[in-house]
Amino acid sequence: MTSSSGTTRIVDLNAFDPQDPAQLALLDSQERDLVQRHFAALGPAGRLFYRHPVQLVGADTNHVFGPNGQRFLDAYNNVPSIGHAHPAVADAVSQQLRTIATHTRYLQPGIVNYSEQLLALFPTALNQIMFTNSGSESNDLALRVAAAYTGGTGIVVTNDAYHGTTAAVNQISPANDSIELPPHVRAIPAPDTFRLRPTEGIGVWFAEHVSRAFADLAASGHRPSALVVDTIFSSSGVFDDPSIMAPAAEAARRHGAVVIADEVQPGFARVGSSFWGFKRHQIVPEIVTLGKPMGNGVPVSGMVAQADVLAPFATSQPYFNTFGGSSVPIAAAQAVLDTIVKESLPDHADDLGSILKAGLVERQAAHPALADVRGAGLYIGFEFVAEAGSTQPDKLQALRFINGMRDNGVLLSACGMFSNTIKMRPMLSWGQAEVTEFFIAVDRTLKQIGS
Amino acid sequence: MTSSSGTTRIVDLNAFDPQDPAQLALLDSQERDLVQRHFAALGPAGRLFYRHPVQLVGADTNHVFGPNGQRFLDAYNNVPSIGHAHPAVADAVSQQLRTIATHTRYLQPGIVNYSEQLLALFPTALNQIMFTNSGSESNDLALRVAAAYTGGTGIVVTNDAYHGTTAAVNQISPANDSIELPPHVRAIPAPDTFRLRPTEGIGVWFAEHVSRAFADLAASGHRPSALVVDTIFSSSGVFDDPSIMAPAAEAARRHGAVVIADEVQPGFARVGSSFWGFKRHQIVPEIVTLGKPMGNGVPVSGMVAQADVLAPFATSQPYFNTFGGSSVPIAAAQAVLDTIVKESLPDHADDLGSILKAGLVERQAAHPALADVRGAGLYIGFEFVAEAGSTQPDKLQALRFINGMRDNGVLLSACGMFSNTIKMRPMLSWGQAEVTEFFIAVDRTLKQIGS
Repeated sequence: MTSSSGTTRIVDLNAFDPQDPAQLALLDSQERDLVQRHFAALGPAGRLFYRHPVQLVGADTNHVFGPNGQRFLDAYNNVPSIGHAHPAVADAVSQQLRTIATHTRYLQPGIVNYSEQLLALFPTALNQIMFTNSGSESNDLALRVAAAYTGGTGIVVTNDAYHGTTAAVNQISPANDSIELPPHVRAIPAPDTFRLRPTEGIGVWFAEHVSRAFADLAASGHRPSALVVDTIFSSSGVFDDPSIMAPAAEAARRHGAVVIADEVQPGFARVGSSFWGFKRHQIVPEIVTLGKPMGNGVPVSGMVAQADVLAPFATSQPYFNTFGGSSVPIAAAQAVLDTIVKESLPDHADDLGSILKAGLVERQAAHPALADVRGAGLYIGFEFVAEAGSTQPDKLQALRFINGMRDNGVLLSACGMFSNTIKMRPMLSWGQAEVTEFFIAVDRTLKQIGS
Repeated sequence: MTSSSGTTRIVDLNAFDPQDPAQLALLDSQERDLVQRHFAALGPAGRLFYRHPVQLVGADTNHVFGPNGQRFLDAYNNVPSIGHAHPAVADAVSQQLRTIATHTRYLQPGIVNYSEQLLALFPTALNQIMFTNSGSESNDLALRVAAAYTGGTGIVVTNDAYHGTTAAVNQISPANDSIELPPHVRAIPAPDTFRLRPTEGIGVWFAEHVSRAFADLAASGHRPSALVVDTIFSSSGVFDDPSIMAPAAEAARRHGAVVIADEVQPGFARVGSSFWGFKRHQIVPEIVTLGKPMGNGVPVSGMVAQADVLAPFATSQPYFNTFGGSSVPIAAAQAVLDTIVKESLPDHADDLGSILKAGLVERQAAHPALADVRGAGLYIGFEFVAEAGSTQPDKLQALRFINGMRDNGVLLSACGMFSNTIKMRPMLSWGQAEVTEFFIAVDRTLKQIGS
């Protein structure tokens, strides 16, 4: 599963089961036919969300539509981040497809212009970019770059991390319960700020785990290479404390490793005015990986690195990515970046995120099972727990909430090491009207599920 | 390097060297500035084609344009395969971006429709598809699927093969001279039908190498998993003999391995009316990987497999690809497939390819260093050799030819284990006018370089 869809265990949680008669009974005949054809063509990997899968045939900025007038507020999908069916992206891509679509072995001003504008949003040290076609490809490349620079292969990740689908990044994605971590990978506990209150502080606590893991790797003959962290800890449950990463980054470097900030989910203003998740932690990673919202639905992603970190790989290894950085993905990415800047979406994400979090916190008085509202910008998580004041996860109630919200016209899903954290990533284009619509559905659903 | 750009050694051959004063002297001031900014932003991996890099700002069906009225006939780029700036793709993608862009966890009729239409072009046994974002991701996934099915990891490839950029597929890409093959990979000689005339026939000869390699892998504790072959042997030099693969496929299966046909380059009618390269060999692979021309410039790719081969992976491993199979890539792919069928491009590729090959053969009388014209459909290779009747490769003459053709307004490049094979992949939209234009440039260039 990609982090867009939650971790393995969440997909297991929020997946349609085509073997379950009760779920099949929810489908009308058109849906049943399409579901059958879907699995026939796409095979068992074609997993669908929800007990009652959602069929989508259209969208406007903040809503997606089913074939029979169904209308859902999208509080989950972080690819079309600046808004569904955004005309700026459609116009730019349409124009580019009518002009030229080619790759980076030919000089193209558009690619150079975009690269420079994007790099200007990073700390000065992060000054070169390579383009890829998915967050997975970005992280796969980042591992190769880190290995060439450090001479090591030892990787440390958090124990619910998800970093992608290639063979190499699947191995550093313990969110996939079915893999056994290979000897060069160590998983450390995620900084669960809801359950852990270490006296030394969460940053020091986390750094100690990082340090021990690298020491253990080194002792086992795996020279440290990289600490790989999603800077909002998406798969672990959305932990936003900005004091987590700095001591950990220092610890990684002390062991000779670099820091790879996986910004596939937090990046591009999802977490607000910091624009990148790592900036909230006031660290400068050696490598940053990008993906999902970069093209608002056109596949485009990249890896930004410090030139001296990139050089050992890029000067010794041939690497050419046919689609990566080609004309059409870049045209989409340029339109997205222009829109984010022009519409001040980073600040807007902070403002609207605060309103959403406040609304959720407000509801905790009447719904004590709704626990620990957290997040940054428009990346929000909150947990369902067994009872007031408890930290005991209640994933079945989370599942009921997700399916109830779907039936009440709002799309979201779950994440976290206990599968009980509701994961919200509203379009950055949401306004007050969508907030109001969201809370009407929340109140109705909480009442229905008796939370 | 991707196979689109030739192998590593070819990119070394046909690469701009920003350290070479003679090459820098070819640039005007605008080009020099853009080249400098290009490398500053993209780093050392941002390699460019040609001694005098080509800057592109526009295209029509068969030509690409520079900023100062330069016009190049495109005889090389196989991504915009149905023609540059194709309105059907631009219209479909524009429309889709204005409708909805979302992923495969929601039901979408368009994705199911396209999957069914594409699968109908395969032998019945190849009946399920998973979507990815690049040929690299497809091959990376194919290795995981093969491993789950066979329980093995042993891979056999040809010794100039290129299968992509991820960590796993880079390891099975000996075209990358800088890698050392890992213990689970064996490289066997490519079926060089120009130099090898085995008495037992090229198919039996190739199968013996396959068999020995798998036996050797098994003996070293690496259980056979897959024979991975580009079915037109793109990186090895474009070998089209359709008797090569059947005995090799049998040999692979005898050792418990599956056959992965890498159709990233030959697929989608590039090799003519067979539509897929493997069909020319009358084999049915267990897994087929797709890429490059599938979306005519929009990143989209896939992996087709036999359901029983796919099941062990797909039922045990979570795999969700955010962009893979999402609305926009599929809209592009649908427009491409419709155009290929509607315009009978597979047959056209055969017809026009025959004319091109005949024209090249015709020129051999006056230019004996132009040797062994070969290929299928509109995938054509021919070699430069030291002298008439020789098989001794002359890569410097190939390099002169490539750069001469560029200066005479035609884009192509080289490939092959000796870097001396000219690799031609004209748009499937070429007609007689482009053939005429091509040969005017060929004749002029051959005269200039004195071949």
